[in-house]
Amino acid sequence: AQEFDFSDHSHRRYNPLTDSWVLVSPHRAKRPWLGQQEAAYKPTAPLYDSKCYLCPGNERATGGQNPKYESTYIFPNDYAAVKIDQPPLPKTDPDKDTLRNRLFNVQSVRGNCFVICFSPKHNLSIPQMKLSDLIHVINAWQTLYNDLAREAREIHKPYKYVQIFENKGTAMGCSNLHPHGQAWCLEAIPSEVSQELKSFSKYKHEHNTDLFADYIKLELQEKSRLVLENESFMVVVPYWAVWPFETMIVSKKKIPSIGNFNQTLKDDLASILKRLTIKYDNMFETSFPYSMGLHQAPLNATGDALNDSWFHMHFYPPLLRSATVRKFLVGFEMLGEPQRDLTPEQAAEKLRNLDGEVHYLEKF
Amino acid sequence: AQEFDFSDHSHRRYNPLTDSWVLVSPHRAKRPWLGQQEAAYKPTAPLYDSKCYLCPGNERATGGQNPKYESTYIFPNDYAAVKIDQPPLPKTDPDKDTLRNRLFNVQSVRGNCFVICFSPKHNLSIPQMKLSDLIHVINAWQTLYNDLAREAREIHKPYKYVQIFENKGTAMGCSNLHPHGQAWCLEAIPSEVSQELKSFSKYKHEHNTDLFADYIKLELQEKSRLVLENESFMVVVPYWAVWPFETMIVSKKKIPSIGNFNQTLKDDLASILKRLTIKYDNMFETSFPYSMGLHQAPLNATGDALNDSWFHMHFYPPLLRSATVRKFLVGFEMLGEPQRDLTPEQAAEKLRNLDGEVHYLEKF
Ligand SMILES: O=P(O)(O)O[C@H]1O[C@H](CO)[C@@H](O)[C@H](O)[C@H]1O
Ligand SMILES: O=P(O)(O)O[C@H]1O[C@H](CO)[C@@H](O)[C@H](O)[C@H]1O
Repeated sequence: AQEFDFSDHSHRRYNPLTDSWVLVSPHRAKRPWLGQQEAAYKPTAPLYDSKCYLCPGNERATGGQNPKYESTYIFPNDYAAVKIDQPPLPKTDPDKDTLRNRLFNVQSVRGNCFVICFSPKHNLSIPQMKLSDLIHVINAWQTLYNDLAREAREIHKPYKYVQIFENKGTAMGCSNLHPHGQAWCLEAIPSEVSQELKSFSKYKHEHNTDLFADYIKLELQEKSRLVLENESFMVVVPYWAVWPFETMIVSKKKIPSIGNFNQTLKDDLASILKRLTIKYDNMFETSFPYSMGLHQAPLNATGDALNDSWFHMHFYPPLLRSATVRKFLVGFEMLGEPQRDLTPEQAAEKLRNLDGEVHYLEKF
Repeated sequence: AQEFDFSDHSHRRYNPLTDSWVLVSPHRAKRPWLGQQEAAYKPTAPLYDSKCYLCPGNERATGGQNPKYESTYIFPNDYAAVKIDQPPLPKTDPDKDTLRNRLFNVQSVRGNCFVICFSPKHNLSIPQMKLSDLIHVINAWQTLYNDLAREAREIHKPYKYVQIFENKGTAMGCSNLHPHGQAWCLEAIPSEVSQELKSFSKYKHEHNTDLFADYIKLELQEKSRLVLENESFMVVVPYWAVWPFETMIVSKKKIPSIGNFNQTLKDDLASILKRLTIKYDNMFETSFPYSMGLHQAPLNATGDALNDSWFHMHFYPPLLRSATVRKFLVGFEMLGEPQRDLTPEQAAEKLRNLDGEVHYLEKF
């Protein structure tokens, strides 16, 4: 009789971080594609673009001017999703049993949003930056994290969590090619993060150890989903990955946040970040789009929230078959549950076998 | 002093169906857009396309031929995400405390997938179809639901839930313009649905009534999120909507599934479906993309699962500012939590004011 084959037969895998499931349908990658094609990336952008509102010295979208910055540069987002000042939301009597109290739960959210220009050079991206320049980016993340924590402590800014992330490529809604990320700092812990913290704490109560401690041990044993590692970090395609080439960078030891990084950790993160993104770009010889971001301890976390936090980064890239054909999480995925067309092990193997040292644009 | 203004100040709203939050940043719609533009829809497709594998009489992707169907037509998906036959997944000893047992939770998933051609006419879509033809679609959904339930009962097919949905438009990953939807039938209840069932049951325990019974009462009272209604259904932009013009069609009375629809319900659903989608198309004078689907009772549900189920449909359309500029749920949304740029009340007002009777292509 035929045996169950994970690379051929449909199955669901459980994501213990988010307490949700993903449907894996490995045979489905064979279907024809007549749908939307992404614009293929052509590396023709100039080093400096006079019309880019992120380039050094240029005017910004709402007026004001960028300094002639020469390294990583942070400034407040001109179209912030949250603002530091707004009137308080009037409290309704929460004890009254009204339909509104039952069904409409609403909170005011203050905060601050920042843009982080990775480099003054308009046409670079992380895989193309020098390690010494990537260290500037990591330093900027660290400074931002620690500054925001201090402002919350010392001058009572309403900051509880800072979500640092990058949207790269038009397929990921990025409206400007200039290498940049963002940081949104809120007085609430965003859902994804608070769900992870809940899962960490549940795991610790059940197994008396950290979820990531066990997970790292298991992935280093099995190796089939491992993409890269160095002294401080590993890159895996999670067992429960949703996006075709989704990965996670996880620090091998428990480090709550980038606020705690020493020089070795910074060097090791810069190096693994560069190698991972070179692999991504080399896969389809394109500037590989993704959303990525840091998950870490809430600002000024204490107790369980501090003890349970474990620095890691998620990469969510949409491409599936080529530089122009992406995975759509629509229909069944929105109404039912996420579905993927190749196994995480197949994705990891493909990533493992790709060159992570030399970027395809430098191969000539 | 300034007062809190929901149409200007950032806030989070809780979604009691999915137990999650959405960040509402109404002032953010003002930012400039330099990012990806969707292809504008040009209504030039022919009534019949000899290269379309869904048109009557044509050859299908994997060989085989469509009949010369004249109404709604259902056939098995040639690239099904789940299949009826696959070898059993070997059981590992679940009581052994291994790292794998702790972290890797996996289930085999069998099932069946169907494609539902709404009409033989290649260039139509729901808002352009006659009411009498929409009834055929609704009949097909009902027949499918009842047939699958019977096959599960009588010949032990591994069917527990059928997710009926439609992806419309290239922006929603739809690879063929021909008006069609899908149905994926699984031996597991998909995450979104089981989360809703959990929420319904929790609500009933707390308030001794149905969540939707209260919700409908409240929305009909407040009216600010109401888009359409008739005897049997209402259309609202949910208080916790994520997508810019997300809506829900909810049956006013508790009906577990389409399996139970009588002729009045079918007529009323056809009519409200047509009016809602005409409004959508009229908004930007385009074929408005979306993913939509039915949420209802699991097949052969009994007890709580049957008692708590309440027929409704979700519409998730991506467009935000125009026929070519969509909302991207990326970066902060993937790492943190969903974020929207206009309030559900603003979206509902816009939808309410649009013509729902005459499709823009018929106005000449
Ligand atoms: O089945 P189709 O139309 O080929 O594919 C589309 O719908 C599926 C179900 O929502 C998705 O999984 C695919 O990503 C999408 O491209
Ligand atoms: O801030 P940007 O680059 O204008 O906008 C982009 O990132 C945001 C945060 O992930 C998203 O909310 C937007 O939908 C996306 O287009």
